[in-house]
Formats: sequence, structure tokens, C-alpha cells
Amino acid sequence: MPIKRRKVSVIGAGFTGATTALMTAQKELADVVLVDIPDMEDPTKGKALDMLEASPVQGFDANVTGTSNYEDTAGSDVVVITAGIARKPGMSRDDLVATNAKIMQQVTDEIVKYSPDCYILVLTNPVDAMTYAVYKQSGFPKNRVIGQSGVLDTARFRTFIAQELNVSVKDVTGFVLGGHGDDMVPMLRYSSVGGVPVESLISKERLNEIVDRTRKGGGEIVGLLGNGSAYYAPAASITEMVEAVLKDQRRILPAIAYLEGEYGYQDMYLGVPTILGGDGIEQVIELELTEDEQSQLDQSAESVRHVMHVLDEQE
Amino acid sequence: MPIKRRKVSVIGAGFTGATTALMTAQKELADVVLVDIPDMEDPTKGKALDMLEASPVQGFDANVTGTSNYEDTAGSDVVVITAGIARKPGMSRDDLVATNAKIMQQVTDEIVKYSPDCYILVLTNPVDAMTYAVYKQSGFPKNRVIGQSGVLDTARFRTFIAQELNVSVKDVTGFVLGGHGDDMVPMLRYSSVGGVPVESLISKERLNEIVDRTRKGGGEIVGLLGNGSAYYAPAASITEMVEAVLKDQRRILPAIAYLEGEYGYQDMYLGVPTILGGDGIEQVIELELTEDEQSQLDQSAESVRHVMHVLDEQE
Amino acid sequence: MPIKRRKVSVIGAGFTGATTALMTAQKELADVVLVDIPDMEDPTKGKALDMLEASPVQGFDANVTGTSNYEDTAGSDVVVITAGIARKPGMSRDDLVATNAKIMQQVTDEIVKYSPDCYILVLTNPVDAMTYAVYKQSGFPKNRVIGQSGVLDTARFRTFIAQELNVSVKDVTGFVLGGHGDDMVPMLRYSSVGGVPVESLISKERLNEIVDRTRKGGGEIVGLLGNGSAYYAPAASITEMVEAVLKDQRRILPAIAYLEGEYGYQDMYLGVPTILGGDGIEQVIELELTEDEQSQLDQSAESVRHVMHVLDEQE
Amino acid sequence: MPIKRRKVSVIGAGFTGATTALMTAQKELADVVLVDIPDMEDPTKGKALDMLEASPVQGFDANVTGTSNYEDTAGSDVVVITAGIARKPGMSRDDLVATNAKIMQQVTDEIVKYSPDCYILVLTNPVDAMTYAVYKQSGFPKNRVIGQSGVLDTARFRTFIAQELNVSVKDVTGFVLGGHGDDMVPMLRYSSVGGVPVESLISKERLNEIVDRTRKGGGEIVGLLGNGSAYYAPAASITEMVEAVLKDQRRILPAIAYLEGEYGYQDMYLGVPTILGGDGIEQVIELELTEDEQSQLDQSAESVRHVMHVLDEQE
Repeated sequence: MPIKRRKVSVIGAGFTGATTALMTAQKELADVVLVDIPDMEDPTKGKALDMLEASPVQGFDANVTGTSNYEDTAGSDVVVITAGIARKPGMSRDDLVATNAKIMQQVTDEIVKYSPDCYILVLTNPVDAMTYAVYKQSGFPKNRVIGQSGVLDTARFRTFIAQELNVSVKDVTGFVLGGHGDDMVPMLRYSSVGGVPVESLISKERLNEIVDRTRKGGGEIVGLLGNGSAYYAPAASITEMVEAVLKDQRRILPAIAYLEGEYGYQDMYLGVPTILGGDGIEQVIELELTEDEQSQLDQSAESVRHVMHVLDEQE
Repeated sequence: MPIKRRKVSVIGAGFTGATTALMTAQKELADVVLVDIPDMEDPTKGKALDMLEASPVQGFDANVTGTSNYEDTAGSDVVVITAGIARKPGMSRDDLVATNAKIMQQVTDEIVKYSPDCYILVLTNPVDAMTYAVYKQSGFPKNRVIGQSGVLDTARFRTFIAQELNVSVKDVTGFVLGGHGDDMVPMLRYSSVGGVPVESLISKERLNEIVDRTRKGGGEIVGLLGNGSAYYAPAASITEMVEAVLKDQRRILPAIAYLEGEYGYQDMYLGVPTILGGDGIEQVIELELTEDEQSQLDQSAESVRHVMHVLDEQE
Repeated sequence: MPIKRRKVSVIGAGFTGATTALMTAQKELADVVLVDIPDMEDPTKGKALDMLEASPVQGFDANVTGTSNYEDTAGSDVVVITAGIARKPGMSRDDLVATNAKIMQQVTDEIVKYSPDCYILVLTNPVDAMTYAVYKQSGFPKNRVIGQSGVLDTARFRTFIAQELNVSVKDVTGFVLGGHGDDMVPMLRYSSVGGVPVESLISKERLNEIVDRTRKGGGEIVGLLGNGSAYYAPAASITEMVEAVLKDQRRILPAIAYLEGEYGYQDMYLGVPTILGGDGIEQVIELELTEDEQSQLDQSAESVRHVMHVLDEQE
Repeated sequence: MPIKRRKVSVIGAGFTGATTALMTAQKELADVVLVDIPDMEDPTKGKALDMLEASPVQGFDANVTGTSNYEDTAGSDVVVITAGIARKPGMSRDDLVATNAKIMQQVTDEIVKYSPDCYILVLTNPVDAMTYAVYKQSGFPKNRVIGQSGVLDTARFRTFIAQELNVSVKDVTGFVLGGHGDDMVPMLRYSSVGGVPVESLISKERLNEIVDRTRKGGGEIVGLLGNGSAYYAPAASITEMVEAVLKDQRRILPAIAYLEGEYGYQDMYLGVPTILGGDGIEQVIELELTEDEQSQLDQSAESVRHVMHVLDEQE
């Protein structure tokens, strides 16, 4: 049995999907298949080819191809879902959920058909509910369906802390629990700079501002871009998760995981610290929470449940 | 004198400029200032912030900022110019030249004002003439004003050869002389795969098709994307040149260099093999050309002269 | 002023010095000059050439040369001192100190003569006292003379924690105060795995064993090798510090820094958390210590003072 | 089936073996098992642990372990053989061959027993004959038993050319045919600098000196070190081959391959250009040789045959 290069498929060739493909290829993690709808087949092929033409210069060996045909994804080790629509003016949040859930179902059927053994990483918003939708539709075991939000939220938090102290981002750690955005539960007491707790380096007031900025981090970019949302940091985040799985790294990363009693929740996806390795989510790490943290997490879970409810009514 | 991180400014925050900023930061070559016009200040800041937020995850220390104020570029070691407009329907090629030349002049004045010692790399099309315009406007010595086209053309050529033979892009070398696109003079006899000349591995007929595809490589991407032009490979190419200068690597790379007699040309910029290092173009390498190659190069030079002529009339 | 590649000189071409040269070159941080005594000139040249011959394969551009002539170190940005003898059977610890202190003085004179503006990183044992000796002899400001021990101690600690939990080393943070080895003061409450405090993941008893193993980490390798001491992890540690300075990263790293009142100590070098950047030790970070931690640190300082006392008597 | 990290075993924990382990781990290609004889078990464990302790600092996730028990190599994807003795004073070359051949046989039996599906890379000298011995003993198909010499010889050649012209090693290509050392057949007409043939950049006389130095490149290092032979460049070379297999890169690399008629040779191992990928040597590339090149290659093959003859008599 010759050794074969790993294969990653990225569903959705928008900015986030394309940048994820680029970063995956740059790290020589796998060959990459970038997939979008038939109407977008040519631009998808164009982006893939442009990336491939960067490979001799950047020095990576990874085949990058664009397609609208799911047959080309066959045998993927990891599939990343970035597909979905953004909320349009006049569209209710529930309509958005319903529309993207339908996209998840279609996309999942195709993924499962051609890569029955793959690990699925979901980025489409609202990501907790969308990951749940993919899980249900796929029939995969829970460890093989994973959502991203905490790596990105943490990355933003780390960036702001590093800026505040004018130090290297490499030395800032931190993580968040719960949902994306407003529902994020930042674990300040678990955040440090070179091992030194941030709470001993930055005033409580300023920390609160940083947490607030982190919570609204996606919105800040949307506001600046004017026309679209963040893609560099989201793509970097999802690529780190792809790497953790493909290199079997057993990273400790926050991920949206299926819970069966952990933290007191049942049958739902929520952002928690996990061990992410060659078998997907190999473990959910349970932390003791303060009363305040648990209450914030409950609120976050409540929001997720609300969105999931929309899904149920949909069916 | 403390050691200070290098500084690179990228003028033009479109896809190519932004991707150049990303790749420069990923390699920790320098802090990066992304500059665009005041109307685009917010999106420019948004892209820069999004990149910065990728840094903790990708593990690079490089400050990336967006601005429309050239003061922020002060003291840059290298400035990359990607600014300029693309040809619009109904616009003559000469009008394009005139418009972009005017942009080059404005941009160059600002660059020179704030970074009088920098090295300037030009990517704006038509690149040979635009590099000439920047050179004239800057008053810089010729080694410090450099255009990019050959690294990209060669990258495409290498990609197609690697695909044809199904081998690693790492082992394919090659280079081109002359102008970008149709005027490109591919030096087939100097192209090899792991040291083996491509001419002994691929039929003449097939090689001609590959050369033709390389010549039209930019157009192929434009055709696929439908709405815009290539940016991944162009950004990778310019970043490689930035790296060669900042790390003083003395790379042998094709570049658009000012000629004073080399290859028989005077007072013009043309794509030739160079030694690119800490002092910019440290040497133009003169190769003995076959009659056919010289004739192709003459034709390429002729095209460049024609565009330069438009510039002259402009003044 | 053309951009010139950075220059690092490594004094002492034993295993640690040579591996530091290799790792510095692999990262393209600088050209490297490896220096040893005249008797060892040929082997030093041999190691340097062997490394250089690895460069086309590993893809790094860095000139590596071997010499016994300090003139070749002229204009270094950073100089690393690994020179010194190991304790021989029958040699008292004080004799070792005296001998290595003499070596520090000779070496420092040469360094200062040829690179009056450089940053000096010291690795020779006993490292706190040797750093002090170099500081005194050099006449350099305190920020430009820095000792290494905490990065290595922390690396060992992180390795053992990662092994214990079977998780990625990337996600384990921690740091130590005080002297090397037995005098090390591990800051357990500041150590975490993916942000999760190690104290909530590993039993107190097991943590104590890991701390103990870390303290004896150098001895463990000496015991296994039978004939020599560790060099891979020490070289990686010193290279990280070289990188922090050359790339002006403002890393938060434990380093042996000159104290003027911090933590209650005066006129001595001791391992403390610092901000390490383009101006060397840009800041000593003062943490609030528990009584127990302060008492351990006092003990560590006491040991250092004892060794420094030997130096004083020497003069 | 969870994704499992690749596994590489390195037989022989001397400098070359240890450095190969380090470089393989640095690139996160695989977990590494370093194997030596029982007498050397502790030092082997020591080197492995020291490397592992470098991993948090260098940022690589790869378990490195030392052992004298081949059971620990079970399920390796690639096994590298560096074991063997160096010629001792008074020892005939034939005795060396006989001794190392015996080592190859013992080692191969153990490798095959625990990793029946692995790819074997051989570095032990005389490498052509030793690779043949491993091939015979293993019973493996020819594509899965590969010797290294040409990558190293080429690396030295590239280094000397880059030095001669004071340019980046990245842009120098070249390759050699035939045996290691004196029997090396450098293909000058296939060597170039940024695509420019070296023959047009360096005088014939100087090129001959460089070729001569390359042929004696191993001896040059031995002469300088005084006590041992090169290991940095050899380890880098073998690691590049490991990477080509594990990442299924289809690199064009010179390798010692089993020939069945190619270049006119039968049933022997000789250095030729190959395509090295996930199935080992996937193809031998046959070049048209000049009369002079063929005659040099014949001489090289003759030397190999002579050594193989010693093996035959041995049995």
C-alpha cells in the first residue's frame, strides 16, 4: 500500500473557503479540492489554479483543484464546510437559519456519499446549530462532526491582549467557552501572557473592554469591510483544526462539540475545550466553572437551543 | 542602536496587495503597512485587522496595519506598488497607460517623501512602463526600482510543466526574458526538471502548447474568475522578491530592470535575469542569446517602447 | 545603505554551539560564525562546512563559517557564548567556576573588541554567575548581556506535562523563576494546557514528581548519555532567544537578567520573566509571589550569590 | 479508522542517525524511533529525550524515542539505515564491506519482521552494495529499498557553485549519476543557476576544480573533523528523501535504485535520477548520455560490481 497524500475538500469557495484552501496547501497538509455550486464552477477553478500557480514560488507540493462536482471530493480525509448565505436585508434570522440548514443537509449528503469515513469541520453560521444539522444529517459518530468558533474568538482575544501589552502574540494564551460572538464566555482566569495571568497585567476595566471587543470581533470586521465579513482569521482557525486532525496532534483547542451530559447539557453542540487529534474530538475537557461562568454558559446554551428549535420546526 | 523589525509598505489594498501583505507577514519578513485611498480606508483597515487576528493562530509576529495616510509608511525598507486601475470596457489601452502612469507619479512622490532610502517593487500593469515611470519620478538609482513579471510567468510555466509530468513543483526550474504576457520570451533550453532539460522530457509540440498557455496565463485566470484577475500567484511572486531584498539573499530571479546597454537596450526597463539582494538589483545577468531568442526579445522591447511612448506624449 | 544580512557569532563549537549554529541558520536568522580555540579550528571549520552543505537541501540561505580568529566575528548583531569546560573528576565546583570565569573574561574581551554594539547571550555554566562575569567584563549596559536557563527548564517542564497528558507540546505553557537546576522555582499556578491550569489536570503528587524531574532534567540527560550533556534542547532554547532579539519580537521569556531592586535583589543576575526584543531585555516583569515562592527564589538567589563570591575572591 | 501519525525508524543513533531523527521531527513528518545496539541504549534514549525536550521550543509535535528493541519500530512507514562501522586503521576495504554487510542482514531481518510494508532508505557505506544487500535480504520489491548518495553529492556541488558565484543556494540546481565519491558522475550540462547553465557562468577549469572538490567532499569533512565524518548534510539529504516518500511528493531526486536494464545495467544498485514518491522509487529516469558520461558511469558501475563481488564471496 503506497503512501498517499492526504485529501481535504473545502465546500464553499468564497473568501473564507478559498483562504482555507490556500493555507492548507501552504502547509502541505493535503491536496485540496475546492467545491462550489455549478454557477460558480469557473471562478472556483480560477481561484484553485491561481493558488496552484503560487506553489512553485511558495515551495509547497499540494494539488489544488476547483470543481462543482462532488465526485471529485471522493475519499477526502477531512471536509470543511464554509458554504451558506449571509443574512440579506429584510431577511429574518430564522429564515437565515432555515436556508443555511437546508444547504447543510444537501452538502452533507454529498459529502457522506463520497467520503463516508471523513471528519467534517463546520464554519457556516450560526455555527452551533449548523454543526448540529450536519451531525444529524450525516449519521456520523459525534467525534467526526466538529464546529469552529473558539479558535477564532481566542485568536482575536490574543491579538488584542498582545496589542495592549505590545508583546508577541506567540506568548498570549486564552480560551473561550460557549457560542460565537455575543454568547462567548471568555475564561479570563485561564488567559496568560508567557504564563503570567492577564488579570495581573491589565486592569479589570480594560480587560472588560477587550472582552467586549472580542465578542464583537466579527462585527468589527464587517463594519470596516462594509461589504462582507472576515476571512483571514477564520480560515487560519479552521486550518489549524484541519492540521490537528491530519497530523494527529491531540491539540487542546476550543471546538463546538456534541455534548452528552458534559457541563450539564444533553444532545446539543456547544463550544467547549477539547482534545482534537487524528480521531477528531477525542475528548471533551470538563472544567470546574464558577457560578458566574456557568450562568454565562447557560445563557449561551439557551441561544443555541433557540436556533436549534427553528431547525426542529423546519423538518 | 536596538534592532528594529523591518518595514514593508504595500500600496493598493486590492486582492493582490492584501495577499502580498499576508504572505509577507506569514514569513515574518517585516511589519506591514497596507495603504489605499481615503475612500477605501475602512476596508483597508478591516483587511489588515483580519490578517493580524490570524497571527496568533498561524504563529507569526508581524504588525499589519491599514491606512490611507502615507505618513504611516515612513521609514519603510521596501515599498510594493500594486495600485492602479484595470482596463474598463471602452477604455483604450493608451488611456489605461496614461491613468496608471499618473497614479504611479502620485504614489511615488508620497513614497519618496516618507521613505527616501527604500527599495520599490512595482506590480502595476503595464508593468515595464510603470516601473519606468516610477523610476523617473523617484529619482532613485536604478537598482532600487524594480518591476515584477518574470517570477510570476516562470511560476506558471513551472506549474504547467510539473502537472504535465506529474512531479513536484519543487524540482522544476525555468525562466523567461522580456515582457509580461504575449511578449514573454521563455528560455526553454534553460528549463529543467530535477536538472533534466524539459526538452528531453516533453515533446516539442506539447512544450509549445505549454509556452502558449504560460503566455496567456494571466488571461486564463481572468477568463475563469469572470470578474477580476489573478492575485495568489502574483502576490507570492512579489513576496519572494521582497524576501530576497530583506534577507539579502542574492537570488537569481528574473526581474524588470533598468538597462544601460545590456542585451543591446538603452534607457528602458525590461525583464531580464538578475541578482536580487540587499541592494536591490545587484547585477543584470547577460546571457548569450540565439538569434531567435534575440529577435523575440527585440519584439518584446518594441512593445515596451511603444507603451513608454504613450508616457512621453503624456508629459 | 543596502540591507545586510544579520550576523550571529557562536563562541564554542561543541555540540551545543554547533547545534545553535545549525538552528540559527535553518531559520535564516543570520549568517553564522562558529568560533573555537586554534587547536579546534579544523573541526570547527568542518562542522560549519557540513552545515553549509545541508543548506541547499534544507533550503536556507545562511553562510556558516568556522574560525578561531575573532576578527571574523566583527560586526555581529548577536554573540552567543557556549564556551567553557565541564567539571572533570576531582575538580572542585569552585575550581570550575574560576576556570570558566577566566574563559568568559577572555572571550568577552574579544567579543567587545570586534562587536561593540552586539547583544550577548550566555549559556556557559554556572550560567547566572557567568552572565554576571560577562556583564562586568564587557562594560555593556545590562539589557545587552543576557543569560539562558529558563527557556530550557520550561521546555523540559512542558515536555513532561505534554507526555503526562498525551497532548500536543504546542498547548502547554509554563515558566520558571530563579536559577538553573535544583534552584529552579517552577511557577505551577502559572502553567496551563490550552489555557487550563495544570493543577486542575494533574494530581499534586504527580506534579511534584514532574517538577522534580524538571529540576534534574540536565542530570537525566547526562546520566543517559554517559559522556557529555544535553545539547539539542539547550541549542533550541538559545536560538529562540536569538530569534526574539533579531526579529524584535518582544517575547515574554524567562531569562537571566541583571536586577537592580526587582524581586528585592540588587546587583546580581537571576532568572526572571522578561520582555526580550530588539533591544535585548527590554523589561523585567515583576510578579507578585506567594511567600513560598519568594522563599524558594531567595534560596536560588543565595546559591547564585555563593558562586559570585567565588568570582570576587578570584579577582 | 482514525488518522494516525506517520512513523519513521532510524537504525543507528550516531551523529547521522540522530541528526536525521531531529530533522524528521522538526518537519513534523512522523514520530521517530531511534534504534541502536543494547550497549548504546542509554545514550540513544538520552539523545531522543534531548530532542523531544527541544520540541516545545521549536514548535514541533513529534514523539522521539530511543530504544534497542526492534519491537518498538513495529509498523514503521519508513525505516532509515545508518548503522554500520567506519573503516578502522589496518582494516581492509573488503573486511569493511563484509562487516557492514553482516550488519545490514541482521538489521534488515529485524526491520522486515516488524514493518513488513515499510520503505527502507539506506545510508551505510559502501552504500550501493549495502543497499543491494538490504534488498536481497528483505525480499522487498525493488521500489521499496532505496539508497542515498546523489542528494548529498548534489548538495555539496550546489554549495560550491553558490559560493563561487556568491548567490543563493536556492537557485542552484544540478545532479550526479553513479556512485558516491570518486565514482560520482557529475552532469555539468544539467546544472544551472536560476536556469542559467553553470558552464556559461564559470570557466571550465574552475568547474573541474569544483567537481573534483565535490568528489572528495566526504573526505574534506573527514580531514577537517579529524575524528569522524560528515553528518549534517547527510542527515538533511536522507530527510529530504523521507519527506518525498511520506508526503508522496514525486520529487525528481538522484537515488541509488535497482536497475533491470536501465542505462544498460542488470541486477545491481546504482545512482540514477528517479521519481521518488509515496511508493518509493516510482520511476527511474533514463537520460541520453554522451559517450564520455556513459564511460564514466560504466567505471562507476564497475566499482560497485567489485564491492558486490566481495558480498557474493561472503555468502
